[in-house]
Formats: sequence, C-alpha cells, structure tokens
Amino acid sequence: MNIASIAYILGWILNIEAAFMLLPVGASVIYRETEGVCYGAAIVLCLLCGFLLTHRRPRNPSFYAREGFVATSLGWIVMSVFGCLPFVFTGEIPSFVDALFETVSGFTTTGASILPDVEAMSRCSLLWRSFTHWIGGMGVLVFLLAVLPMVGGTNMHLMRAESPGPSVGKLVPKVRYTAQILYRVYLALTAMEFLLLLVCGMSAFEALCTAFGTAGTGGFGVKSDSIAGYSPAIQWVVTIFMIVFGVNFNVYFLILMGKLRQAARCEEMRWYLGIIACATLLIFANTYDLALTAENNLRNAAFQVASIITTTGFATVDFDLWPEFSRLILVLLMFVGACAGSTGGGLKVSRWVIAGKSVARGLASALHPRSVRRIHFEEKDVDDDTLSNVCLYFIVVIFVFTASLMLVSLENKDLVSTFTAVAATFNNIGPGLGVVGPTQNFASFSPLSKLVLIVDMLAGRLELFPLLMLFYPPLWREAKSDFDRRRRRRASAGLGE
Amino acid sequence: MNIASIAYILGWILNIEAAFMLLPVGASVIYRETEGVCYGAAIVLCLLCGFLLTHRRPRNPSFYAREGFVATSLGWIVMSVFGCLPFVFTGEIPSFVDALFETVSGFTTTGASILPDVEAMSRCSLLWRSFTHWIGGMGVLVFLLAVLPMVGGTNMHLMRAESPGPSVGKLVPKVRYTAQILYRVYLALTAMEFLLLLVCGMSAFEALCTAFGTAGTGGFGVKSDSIAGYSPAIQWVVTIFMIVFGVNFNVYFLILMGKLRQAARCEEMRWYLGIIACATLLIFANTYDLALTAENNLRNAAFQVASIITTTGFATVDFDLWPEFSRLILVLLMFVGACAGSTGGGLKVSRWVIAGKSVARGLASALHPRSVRRIHFEEKDVDDDTLSNVCLYFIVVIFVFTASLMLVSLENKDLVSTFTAVAATFNNIGPGLGVVGPTQNFASFSPLSKLVLIVDMLAGRLELFPLLMLFYPPLWREAKSDFDRRRRRRASAGLGE
Repeated sequence: MNIASIAYILGWILNIEAAFMLLPVGASVIYRETEGVCYGAAIVLCLLCGFLLTHRRPRNPSFYAREGFVATSLGWIVMSVFGCLPFVFTGEIPSFVDALFETVSGFTTTGASILPDVEAMSRCSLLWRSFTHWIGGMGVLVFLLAVLPMVGGTNMHLMRAESPGPSVGKLVPKVRYTAQILYRVYLALTAMEFLLLLVCGMSAFEALCTAFGTAGTGGFGVKSDSIAGYSPAIQWVVTIFMIVFGVNFNVYFLILMGKLRQAARCEEMRWYLGIIACATLLIFANTYDLALTAENNLRNAAFQVASIITTTGFATVDFDLWPEFSRLILVLLMFVGACAGSTGGGLKVSRWVIAGKSVARGLASALHPRSVRRIHFEEKDVDDDTLSNVCLYFIVVIFVFTASLMLVSLENKDLVSTFTAVAATFNNIGPGLGVVGPTQNFASFSPLSKLVLIVDMLAGRLELFPLLMLFYPPLWREAKSDFDRRRRRRASAGLGE
Repeated sequence: MNIASIAYILGWILNIEAAFMLLPVGASVIYRETEGVCYGAAIVLCLLCGFLLTHRRPRNPSFYAREGFVATSLGWIVMSVFGCLPFVFTGEIPSFVDALFETVSGFTTTGASILPDVEAMSRCSLLWRSFTHWIGGMGVLVFLLAVLPMVGGTNMHLMRAESPGPSVGKLVPKVRYTAQILYRVYLALTAMEFLLLLVCGMSAFEALCTAFGTAGTGGFGVKSDSIAGYSPAIQWVVTIFMIVFGVNFNVYFLILMGKLRQAARCEEMRWYLGIIACATLLIFANTYDLALTAENNLRNAAFQVASIITTTGFATVDFDLWPEFSRLILVLLMFVGACAGSTGGGLKVSRWVIAGKSVARGLASALHPRSVRRIHFEEKDVDDDTLSNVCLYFIVVIFVFTASLMLVSLENKDLVSTFTAVAATFNNIGPGLGVVGPTQNFASFSPLSKLVLIVDMLAGRLELFPLLMLFYPPLWREAKSDFDRRRRRRASAGLGE
C-alpha cells in the first residue's frame, strides 16, 4: 500500500476544501455575519493539515486499484470531517455527529437534514451547505484531477473509484482533460440555471443556493418548505434542471462537439426520460386534485418525480400524503436513480437496463439452452465483466441495505419510515416517507442510526466498493505487511531514508 | 412444441388429482358429511377430462426445456382450477376467484387464506385444504415421475422445471428412482410427525392436517388461532418438524445410505440452521416478555422463526405486535427461505450463500484485479452458469416483485401490508404484517389483487421461469409455427394419421 501517495492526495483535498470555504467567508463579508470567522478558523485548520501532508511529494509512483479505493473513501471522510467544523464552531449545529451528518449529506448530494428550522441558519452557513452539494456532485477527486497533474496510473484509479455507473467512460484519452471538460460543462449548466432563476424573480442568494442544490442533485433548500413557496415558473425551471443534471454528461460533451445525432441516440438517456414520463403520468392520474388546475397537478407530479429519480430531494408538496400507489412509485424511483456519469445517485438507469436485458436473455436461453446471445447496450456488446459487475452490485446493495435496515430498525420507528430513511440516504435522495417525509427531518434518530446513515450516504455516493474496502480485513493485512517491510528495509539501510 | 405430450401429462395430472380427492371423500364418509358428494362430482370431472387427454399415448418423443416449462406451469394451473371446484360446489367458498386463491395457496404451500372463519369449514374440506399442501410440497410432477414411466428426456425437463433451488441434483442416475426415494422419505417423515402429534395428545384428524401442513411447509391450520391453542409439547414438535422439512432432502437420502458424516457436512444445511439459531436468539432478546417463562419466550421466538424461514406460516403468537426489529427480521427471513431441494419456498439459503460468496470474491478481485478466484459451495467449485443463474434469479425476483407491488398498491392499503402481502405470497409463506398479519386474512383484497397474488404464489413455487415462459411471446410464436407446420404436413399426407 502506497501510504505516502494516499496522504498526499488527502492533503490536497484539504487544501482545495480550504479554497472552497472562501465562498462562505465572502458571503459573511457581504451579509456582515460574524459566523465568517468560524469559516476562517476552519480554513486555517484545513491548510495546516493540508500543508503537513503535501509539503513532500511522494516518490513511489505505484498506485493501483486498492490505493484508488482507499484514497477515495478516506478523502471523502476527511473532507466531511473538516467540512463540518464550521457548523460546530458557529454553534449552529452544536453536536458533532449532527454536523457530520449534515456535511456528509451535503457532499454526498443526499440533502437529508437534521435541522428542524433551516431559516434560522446564517446565510454563509446556508451557502456552504448548498455549496457542498455542488462540490460533491461532480466529485472532489475529479476536481483534483482537473487541476493537479498526477503521477502514473493515479488518475484512472481515482476517477474509477469516484465516478458513478457501471463503467467509466473517458471522454478524451487523457483523464485530466476529461475531468476539465466535465467541470466546465458542470459550471456552465449551473450558471445557466442560476441566471434563469434570477430572471424568474428569485433573489441572487437563493438562486445561487438553489442552483448548487440542483446541479449536485443534492436537495438542501434555504426555505423550510423547500421549493413549494416559489412561483410556478421557478418550479418548472428547477424541474427541468434536475432532469438535465441527471443525464450522463457524455451527452453534453457530444452536443458540444456538434454530434447532436449521437447525443440523441444515448440509450440510457432515452430510458431515463421514458421512465420520468411514465412515472409522471401515473402519479398525475393517481393524485389528480380537482381543486387545482391541470398545470398545477402536472407540475406537482413532474417536480416530485424529477426530484426523486435524479435523487435531488427538493419538494413542492408533501408527497407523504399521496395515495399508496404514488408513494410506492416514488420509493421505486429512489432505487432507479439517475444516469451513470451524471451528478445523480441511486442504482443508475443503465444498471437496470442491463439487468432487464439479461432477464430477456435468460428467458431466451431457457427456451433454447444451446443458443448464445449477447446483450447490447449503447450500441455495443456488454462484456461478461460488466454484466457480472452489475449483478454483483445489486447483490452488494441488498446486503448493505439489509444490514443498515436491521441496525436502524432498533430505533423501533415504523417500518416504512425505517425503510425509506435507509433508502433515501443510501440512494442520496434526502427525504423519505413517514417520520423522514418531506416536511420532516432526521433529527429524531439516535447517534448510532445517524452513523449508520452516514456510512450509507458515503457508500451510496461512492458506489459501495471503495467504502466496503475500508471494512475488508485483507486490505489492512496487506497494508500492514507492506508497512512492516518498508520499515525493515529502512532500518537495515541504517538511518538513511 | 410437442403439444400432444404436454396434453398427455396434463391428463395424468388430473387422473392423479382425482385419486388424491378420494381422501376427503373418505373423511366425509367417516364424519358423515354430505360435502363428500361435491368431492365425488369433482372426481368425475377430473377423470372425464383426464381420460380425454390420456386415452392416446403421444408418439412424438421430442421433449425439451420449453415443453418442460409449459407442462409444469400449465399442470399447476390445471391442478388448481380443478382442485378448487369442491370448495365452489359445497358453497363453502362461493366465489371462484376466492376458491382458486385458496387452492393455489394450498398447492403452492403458501397457506394464505381468504377464510375469515376456518372452523366453520367441513372436515373433508379442511382435510383437502391441508392435503393440497402435502401434494404441492414435493410436487405433483415429481409424483407423476415416480409412478409413471415416461419417454425420452421428459423426466429431467419436468424435474428441473418443478424442483426448487439453483441446481437439480439427481440422487441416483435414474430420475424415476430419485422421485420414488424423495416421496418415500417425505411419507416417512410425515408419518413420524403424525405419530408424535398423536402422542402429544392431538386428535387424529388435527394431527393429520397439521402433519400435512408442516410437511408441505404450507401453513393452513384447522383452528382460527393456528397452533397457538395447542400444548407446548405440540408446538415444539411442529417447530422441529418445520425445520426438518426445510432441509435439503438429499441430506435424508445420505442418512438413509448410512453416510452420516457426509450428511452433516451439507453446507447449505449448516447455514440454514445457523440463520435459524441467530434469528431466534435476536428475536428472543428483542421480544423478551417478563410475564412469560423463559421457555415460553424461546418457544415463541423459535416457532415463529422456523415458521417463516421454512415458509410454512403457522403462528403461535401475533407477531404483528412485536417490536419493529423483530418484525423486520421476520420480513427478511421471508426472503431467505428454506434449503434448495426441500419442500420450503423462498429464495433458498443456497442462493444467498452463493451470492454472499460472490461478494467476497468481488472484493478480493477489486483488491487484486488480475487474480482469478473460484467460488466453493458444498465442497465443489460453483461454475459460471450456476453463478449467473443465481444472479439472474435475484434480478427476475426484483422485477416480478416490483410489478406485483405496483398492481397491489392500487388497493391503497398501507405499504407494509402491501409489501408483506406480496412477500408472503411470492415466497409461499402465508401470513405477513398489517392487514395480512397472522390473525388476519386475504379476504379484503380485490379480485384483481387476488389474481396478482395467485400468479405470485405460482411464480414463487415454480421459481419464476416456468411461469414467466407463459408470458413470453416468442414461445407462443414458435408453438404456433410448429402447429402450422404439422397441420400442413398432415394435410399434404391426405387424411392419414
């Protein structure tokens, strides 16, 4: 295990986090809030630790899958631990576990909150909360790759560990340029939404926070009633941009390259849009309220569907009061998730499409046991590795999900609340049903449950394997034996390095 | 498609069913119940149709997987449709859909009932209800194979389509002898339980019905309070026999052969017993009631765990009143199921063990991408086909389960009731939670939901593929083109044949 390289990456993550924290500091200056001092203190802490870890470049270039997994999952943990310090320093979230929950929920773009009253927060803290969504949406390691030249195979292993979806597509041969393109598209789309929200009459501060929350498919709002209080135009803008940020970013890259036809042929996007259309129509029919206009009914259905399938978690109505059929559809959408390669979470549409096609193939080969069939997806054959990874992913989800359910059910909350609390954190959505419904929050859970849900949020965002690795004993045995070997070598070379 | 062979098999199923119906007729003679006449009428109908279908032996010996699937699923449907006629004739269950639900629930060893008052039924109908469990437990096609010499590859394809578990083991080279051995073991174990229940003070009639219900892991009781009203000794006997009937029957064959050591090494059985022990202890601790003795607490926990994991569905307490943690464990056990090759339903312990091992292998190969590892199960390597079939099975379960949930949720019952109603029928258990809890029944569902649950029960018992085949258009296209070709050939050969 190349511990030096991992420490170096962690250090850079802290440096970058310090830079990101300048945004809330700026806000505190504009709005004359004293909380900015606490953000300054957190910046100093980040830079201090960052400097200690990065002042010496590691010389060992070996960096493999296991280093990628460990650097990614530890990176996210370190980032969350330091990112929650301002909330503790300002006293706005005095409990460390609560502050960590809120920050992990931010970075993982979950949007589950323990705050009973969002509007009591300072503006700089609200901005930081929403900004964590934006940082986490595209991934901080992808950002690191975009700005920092790395050695050897580091790039691809980090990219692979952090990027969502069954397989990682490089847009261009160099990982670094891929990362830069992704961030540019991300920035441009966020700016577009921000401007449109301004045009629709939102204040600059709220528009910025809402754009960050939408872009990262996070869902932290700045109002207690989420998006419900805003005008229909704003709700439609948010609906459309939630859907936009749930599409595979490769599509936008293709559009930028002028390959519009190829972009429109993206199979995952078509399924994704088709599912959104079907779910919206079903819920529209099931929840139709004669007291509202048809537009209002459609808007409510479309907003909630877009919010859940993209795993954003904004709300304009209390969908916990909907009929069971619509509630069930929302729960199912929680597990569908957005497209691979988007900022959205969940299991991803592509995994379901591949799974569905493997069922069709299974039936065909049950009918004709001797025939050999291949599965096509995105105009390519799906190789056996991808297929078995998809299957494996579902199985791991079932195991992790079951273990979380058992731990959280010790709270003795009703099963629907327990189930949707785990589903909403694991799939990085935010609100669930029952006691974690859209008008409620996660404050009532015990610290143990909060820790379980924190692990679920990280596991969901990093697509399980990087985080599971941390709990996998052989990894640590190998790390220890590597460490011992290096120490012995160093000792036998005298005091020399 | 070899329609003649399939029709021939369906005919024999009806003949055998007529023979089985002699048991309730005998009961009606002993207890002087007029309902026996209705069973007589059903026997006449079965024999009439059976004779029409079996009077000519089919000459075309070709019988492949698809014929196996179709014969099996149609066989179960035909058997259920004819099996429910007595309930309609006697007027005890006047609605055809209700009678079909009750009979499918019987044959599939589910034990979900639409009867609000079991004790109002005639004895011959109670006996027939319980006897359907016993018939369905080992499978009527396996019975057919045991008693009727078949042509060509018919045997193996039927056995494969009806037997539960990820792979079919023949105990001896000949399928027919395997089927005979299985039925002998089944009969001997049922007789043992019957005698023990008699010794513990149950009446002969109740002991017979309870033994049938336990042996088939069905769960229809003859009392409204299931097994709750019986003595502790009886409850323990039923607990132990439920566990016994959930073990892979290969184990008993090995014991019969004197290979005790090999029997004790059965990996699936060890996991199964381990899960039962863990679940019992967890529930024992979680539900401990100081008002009861320790033995009573342990008995309640063990009985309910054994009842759910073996998918029997008897109850001695209203577990719907238990704390959420215990309720959740029961829901999870619903999906674990019994061992492959037993009379129990569910997903089967072996599938979960193989799935768990594939996760461990996935972690290992994420750590060392170049290494190749094999999965061992039951002291053998698991081949890629079995592994991908296990994965496929989980995925199909998710799809079928989701579709059923959506249809049943249109009832607007609470999500826990909807979910457990589907889980309890799909996994062939019987009772669930909420409105389908152990003290409740399925009468309140609409005919549409009942039909969906009927399909779920059959799909669960036949392990999905045979039943899914009936909904797979290419099968019918092929069947039609075969049929057309044969008709043309016959026409061209003049009036011959």
